[in-house]
Amino acid sequence: MLVPLGPVAVFGASNFPLAFSVAGGDTVSALAAGCPVVVKAHPAHPGTSELVARAILTAARATSMPDGVFSMVQGATPEVGQALVAHPAIQAVGFTGSFRGGQALVAAAAKRPQPIPVFAEMGSANPVFVLPDALATRGDEIAKTLASSIILGSGQFCTNPGLTFVADPTDGFVKQLGTLLGESPAGTMAHAGIKRAYDEALTLVGALAGVTVAARASTHGAYADTEAQPALIVTDVPSFTTQDRLGEEIYGPASVAVRCRSEGELMNAAAQLKGHLVATVHATDKDLAANPGLLPLLARKAGRIVMNGVPTDVEVTHAMHHGGPWPATSDSRATSVGTAAIVRFARPVCFQDVPNAALPEELRDSNPRGIWRLLDGHPTREPVPSRG
Amino acid sequence: MLVPLGPVAVFGASNFPLAFSVAGGDTVSALAAGCPVVVKAHPAHPGTSELVARAILTAARATSMPDGVFSMVQGATPEVGQALVAHPAIQAVGFTGSFRGGQALVAAAAKRPQPIPVFAEMGSANPVFVLPDALATRGDEIAKTLASSIILGSGQFCTNPGLTFVADPTDGFVKQLGTLLGESPAGTMAHAGIKRAYDEALTLVGALAGVTVAARASTHGAYADTEAQPALIVTDVPSFTTQDRLGEEIYGPASVAVRCRSEGELMNAAAQLKGHLVATVHATDKDLAANPGLLPLLARKAGRIVMNGVPTDVEVTHAMHHGGPWPATSDSRATSVGTAAIVRFARPVCFQDVPNAALPEELRDSNPRGIWRLLDGHPTREPVPSRG
Repeated sequence: MLVPLGPVAVFGASNFPLAFSVAGGDTVSALAAGCPVVVKAHPAHPGTSELVARAILTAARATSMPDGVFSMVQGATPEVGQALVAHPAIQAVGFTGSFRGGQALVAAAAKRPQPIPVFAEMGSANPVFVLPDALATRGDEIAKTLASSIILGSGQFCTNPGLTFVADPTDGFVKQLGTLLGESPAGTMAHAGIKRAYDEALTLVGALAGVTVAARASTHGAYADTEAQPALIVTDVPSFTTQDRLGEEIYGPASVAVRCRSEGELMNAAAQLKGHLVATVHATDKDLAANPGLLPLLARKAGRIVMNGVPTDVEVTHAMHHGGPWPATSDSRATSVGTAAIVRFARPVCFQDVPNAALPEELRDSNPRGIWRLLDGHPTREPVPSRG
Repeated sequence: MLVPLGPVAVFGASNFPLAFSVAGGDTVSALAAGCPVVVKAHPAHPGTSELVARAILTAARATSMPDGVFSMVQGATPEVGQALVAHPAIQAVGFTGSFRGGQALVAAAAKRPQPIPVFAEMGSANPVFVLPDALATRGDEIAKTLASSIILGSGQFCTNPGLTFVADPTDGFVKQLGTLLGESPAGTMAHAGIKRAYDEALTLVGALAGVTVAARASTHGAYADTEAQPALIVTDVPSFTTQDRLGEEIYGPASVAVRCRSEGELMNAAAQLKGHLVATVHATDKDLAANPGLLPLLARKAGRIVMNGVPTDVEVTHAMHHGGPWPATSDSRATSVGTAAIVRFARPVCFQDVPNAALPEELRDSNPRGIWRLLDGHPTREPVPSRG
């Protein structure tokens, strides 16, 4: 049976002050596994964090949870987080944030005498592939859906579609996407520091060889310090494959369109991708039949494959996988969304020849809790048959 | 669905040149997950390793496996293993061996830009608890069974019972165990270096405060360089709890008996244990009723709890867990024995809105492979019901 791993350190994300912060998926899945949680509040929303922490403590008291089941530390310096990860009582770490932040926690955990798992979701560019028959059939609709997904929440989704590969001889799709983004309203980001980083990233990427900033929306200026302008960056496959930065996340409402001269060039570009959270494919049955290697290839590059939809469509379900090969996460075997997130914080214990009465309820022959169990390797909710 | 993680580096153990080396549990479970394997042969049996590697390569060709599905490197220096773990193609590491060896691989993996999981099974002392009613009822039989387990395979089992806690006012049990071990034949160890390390450990532990080497078997001398003499080391709880070395593995046919003045003292000693692979309890129903906290406590200290048996009884089954909290392993969530070992080397991929015909067989509505799957969170082998 599975038992809790022990106290878990959770690092709240900046982008979802509710869904991915103090009472977010990491905290909830650690509590569900039976682990106490110590949250390191994100310095971008200390007040919201404090309000949510107090609500959790009230709920813990109302439900007679043990003291210490939840606590939170505040602090704007990296030292606070480092000290939390280094504490010998901490047995696992959950993190959602930047690549640099995630790598720093992995490094801090590696300095401990005892290794502990670090589940760092560090974001990705989440490539989108638009195949020729889908483009011919419903290119207009794809451009509109994609533009909506790019600007959703001012582009502050981990699953934001930041890269689009399209083989489009007429260049109509890229032009349309640029027009849509250029006409989109500027959006408010979580704080001014994120907006500054977004502008810096646009400047950096725009200056790379073979890159054009094809469109950039105007801002109405009322909240210029936090308002991000949607943008489309356009490049080609040779420029993409020789400049790593083009395959990395631009945190905000921007996307890089990579013009491919052929489906073959599109496949070659896909083969050179690093790890991402999600890959999206717009394809008809004809497109899929013509490119049978694309989905198996993308299964090696991403944790989730979305067909004819948008990567920002994430749901908390049993089948969701929100994770992916490095550098999208520090552990590609783990998800931070969905019920499978719970098992990250549990470990197995085997009870061998223990008398029925001394077993935990979960393992007693009669299955008093009526749970799914493996019996000789097969799932069942039945009691263990009599051995008489 | 689960997909393979990628190439796995496997470090063969010295103690089982067949079961835990080139074609051992780590190699087999990585191959079962669909991962290519690169074995680092153990320098204590390079010839056996070469023979086994050739057998695997013959089998790979006979079954039309792809080239590169299995390979092996030899080398007696740590640099060979470090280079293997550092190679960017390697996606996971399996290791069975010493604490020092395991920690070195964890450290080598931590230096990579990409973190990878390291499953190091580093051994443990595997505590045994003999409770009063069991002692009164069948102390004689327990001593005999325990002595057999201590000398099994010259004590070269990861699960060797290296620590015994007993509350025995007459001291009869410890005396009997000492007599049995002192009369046991010396046993051949895998190589002379292991035998030397065993003798050094006995000398070191025997010199600790409050420790007596109560019995040590004689050797018949024919193979003195590899022959290990079974031994019983006796101490008390205050000496045990203040000297860490007494709770660590002595690799060979020796065990440390810790005399407890009461069941309370025995429980206190148990609470101070570090992580072990397995904990064994000899108890009657009366003993268990009198000590309801013992099994829950041991579930926090070990990966497996054996009742009225010996810890060396390990079987390759679905329910086996051969792992345990640090320092027994580097990742308490993983087992290196049993079918659950396979999932260590796999990661999930989610297919969202992918047409049935483009899905891998494992996920198609009709379930053509007839496998167990989760549907809305419930295990089933049925097809997906029509959505019409």
